[in-house]
Amino acid sequence: MRISFIGSGRVAHHFAKQLSKQHQIVQIYSRDLTHAQKLAEQCHAQAIQNYSQFDHNIDLLMIAISDQAIAEVIVNMGRYFENVLIVHTSGSTHLNVLSQQHARSGVFYPLQTFSLERDIDWSNTPLFVEATQVDDLQILVALANSLSNRVYTYDSAQRLSLHLAAVFACNFSNYCYDMAKQVVDAEQVDFSLLYPLILETANKATLNNPKTMQTGPAMRGDQNILNMHMKMLAEAGRGDLKQVYEILSQGIQTRQSSQ
Amino acid sequence: MRISFIGSGRVAHHFAKQLSKQHQIVQIYSRDLTHAQKLAEQCHAQAIQNYSQFDHNIDLLMIAISDQAIAEVIVNMGRYFENVLIVHTSGSTHLNVLSQQHARSGVFYPLQTFSLERDIDWSNTPLFVEATQVDDLQILVALANSLSNRVYTYDSAQRLSLHLAAVFACNFSNYCYDMAKQVVDAEQVDFSLLYPLILETANKATLNNPKTMQTGPAMRGDQNILNMHMKMLAEAGRGDLKQVYEILSQGIQTRQSSQ
Repeated sequence: MRISFIGSGRVAHHFAKQLSKQHQIVQIYSRDLTHAQKLAEQCHAQAIQNYSQFDHNIDLLMIAISDQAIAEVIVNMGRYFENVLIVHTSGSTHLNVLSQQHARSGVFYPLQTFSLERDIDWSNTPLFVEATQVDDLQILVALANSLSNRVYTYDSAQRLSLHLAAVFACNFSNYCYDMAKQVVDAEQVDFSLLYPLILETANKATLNNPKTMQTGPAMRGDQNILNMHMKMLAEAGRGDLKQVYEILSQGIQTRQSSQ
Repeated sequence: MRISFIGSGRVAHHFAKQLSKQHQIVQIYSRDLTHAQKLAEQCHAQAIQNYSQFDHNIDLLMIAISDQAIAEVIVNMGRYFENVLIVHTSGSTHLNVLSQQHARSGVFYPLQTFSLERDIDWSNTPLFVEATQVDDLQILVALANSLSNRVYTYDSAQRLSLHLAAVFACNFSNYCYDMAKQVVDAEQVDFSLLYPLILETANKATLNNPKTMQTGPAMRGDQNILNMHMKMLAEAGRGDLKQVYEILSQGIQTRQSSQ
């Protein structure tokens, strides 16, 4: 396949380098030409900065830029690639952001943390593909299968739910660790004492349903401890943590009393 | 040392069995005599059910019962052991629950999950000791050192803060996993896709300060994504999860803008 990229950031970087092993990377577009050139050199492509330089003779255009910029790019650039399949690589952008502007639209989303320094284990990276047209979906599935053993054809609602779930499972759990550290720091207690419990809790969630693994005073309905903890937080001037404690404890109790 | 126990549950069970290797376990008291007998047999002790049978000729009395019952037990039984060092084994009960009633009081708390089926790795189990009298603290430190390489003399405020922090770091992070699973389950998306992110997040929190490891839309201040997520939760009829999302996102943003 002949593939071009809009964007030369981390996602474009890793995709272009890996895809260049089996496909021809034609052009890398970036508003910052130096940035585009850096990547283009590594995958024998042409770096460009002007729409007038677009080569339409490609099979796939990958838009790998920040979520907010996708809508504007498809409006301004989509018409240069009228009969070309265009995909974005975002986990949190609906397919219709492209498909409202362009007939042959799709999504090619890798569930992975990218940094420029580290190589990606592509074969184990889940890839989520979606397309408005069945033929295009087959093209994307084939391309995904050439990269990874874990290819999923999920629709936008599913992909977006995964992204939302990751906020709960990762961003919010990390904030729970951060709140825990604030609590022990205030009493000069060593946060590392909690490491075994943190790792064990995470590990158990991958072996069993987290609902059935729930422990703690809220789960047990131990109102004495719940009251003591909220009093401790209030007296420490941490009304913010008290509010979180109260709402999450209520959530656990409601959840445990459900089916 | 001559040691007796009030209680014959999981904590008493593991302590009595381990201590019996180096010390004499004298009596096991339980309201349920059969239960006391089961443990007493394993550590060559006498099982009792009546206060009149108490043998006062001991060096240490360990109260290993539920948190709520400790206050009542020390009022009713403490006078039978007037000159004896009495400790409780609770992470969430202040020393003064004992010391208000009894002169020689202490705490001997293991930070560990106990189940009857599994053996405890005592040498790596953090033990927290505390006592009202300096001589008694030395006795408890020596006893703790004979069990574990990780002995801490923390006061009650410190011990209680550790317990409160564990609620945030473990109980609440597990509830975050549970909420994540509810989000993906509603869209027939495989929760196991999140396992690598869950494990990586927990692992990173043991290597770096969780505050600096924070990621996600709240951390980035990406209001478009925050709004989209809250709209998704509202439209799915999950006002409860929306409330959690909003409060934790606000918490992350406030935290990141602090020093």
